[in-house]
Amino acid sequence: MIKNGISTAVVKRLPRYYRYLGELMEAGTERISSGELSKLMNVTASQIRQDLNNFGGFGQQGYGYNVEYLYNEIGRLLGVDRRHNIIVVGSGHLGQAIANYTNFERRGFIVKGMFDKNPDIIGRNVRGIKIMGMEEIGEFIKKNKIEIAALTLPKQQAPEIAENLVAYGIKGIWNFAHVDLKLPKGIVVENVHLSESLMRLSYNLTTRDEK
Amino acid sequence: MIKNGISTAVVKRLPRYYRYLGELMEAGTERISSGELSKLMNVTASQIRQDLNNFGGFGQQGYGYNVEYLYNEIGRLLGVDRRHNIIVVGSGHLGQAIANYTNFERRGFIVKGMFDKNPDIIGRNVRGIKIMGMEEIGEFIKKNKIEIAALTLPKQQAPEIAENLVAYGIKGIWNFAHVDLKLPKGIVVENVHLSESLMRLSYNLTTRDEK
Repeated sequence: MIKNGISTAVVKRLPRYYRYLGELMEAGTERISSGELSKLMNVTASQIRQDLNNFGGFGQQGYGYNVEYLYNEIGRLLGVDRRHNIIVVGSGHLGQAIANYTNFERRGFIVKGMFDKNPDIIGRNVRGIKIMGMEEIGEFIKKNKIEIAALTLPKQQAPEIAENLVAYGIKGIWNFAHVDLKLPKGIVVENVHLSESLMRLSYNLTTRDEK
Repeated sequence: MIKNGISTAVVKRLPRYYRYLGELMEAGTERISSGELSKLMNVTASQIRQDLNNFGGFGQQGYGYNVEYLYNEIGRLLGVDRRHNIIVVGSGHLGQAIANYTNFERRGFIVKGMFDKNPDIIGRNVRGIKIMGMEEIGEFIKKNKIEIAALTLPKQQAPEIAENLVAYGIKGIWNFAHVDLKLPKGIVVENVHLSESLMRLSYNLTTRDEK
């Protein structure tokens, strides 16, 4: 059993381990040493040992890690061993891109419904998922046991809509709006601020030029 | 003048300072103390002082920070005071969402061209930006002084195309494909791994449930 209480820094790295272990499994690799994993992932072997030690006793001297076991344990910790029902709130291009990612579905994240306030797109289908009007959202969340909402709408609308979603029972918000949401304790918010990412890229380009 | 050599952790936080300072400017605020900024941003005042001290001598006791000055200096550091020409490689929903963000343009990131290998969408326009075939990409980069490429295509295609882009002169890659790119030193890669973000959300939901 993997213990909880893992540091935020390690949590940030877990999905990357999960991805590499998944690719190793697909390639038929049964065991891997921290040294081999180090070369593959471009991380020091000691960092890998330290990170994976959080889960206790998999790595064995001269034997390495059992890829499938580690993959499954990390997957369980990441919650991808169970099903998460998602809605997409804001059905523009970004919302549609998310609904179209079948890879999320493979990991147990199922987009059950999409919402928008634009009457021109309400009623349309994206990969069989219907775009509904905002007034239907509350009932839909309750009926379909929706846990996560992807917020893909302009930042002006996001705070109020996020509060409503929480009132309707949403537990996690995947926030693409460029604003910090202030929500009750216990509600999980994961931000994807694309313009901040683009500015970091630009920062690194700028300092690179000045070197 | 802002000095270089700022730690990665501070760089990560810079775009957020930039956003809040921009909003303060829009609201007509001329000066702000670290205490006020701390409340607004939900960060300790000492962290704010430490971060902003990197830029030397703006904060003055009993006077606070000059919002506009700080905004402009951080903007300069982030490279948003100059123009960056971008192409979008992979013109599906995600690529189109990026081309449609007029906010990026306001910050000097101009999408000059879009590319795809799908003949059904080549020739289409997104906000006046033409979708071209992949064979045109090399000449387009050189002719239009393109600096940054947003890679919004499946992970299988990403590594080879990224290498080609670098050979054509691209300096920065905004990578949305779920793969780590191995590129020559000096090329800047900024990753946006959406499925890893979703798994972190799921992790936090899972451990929250177990508490």
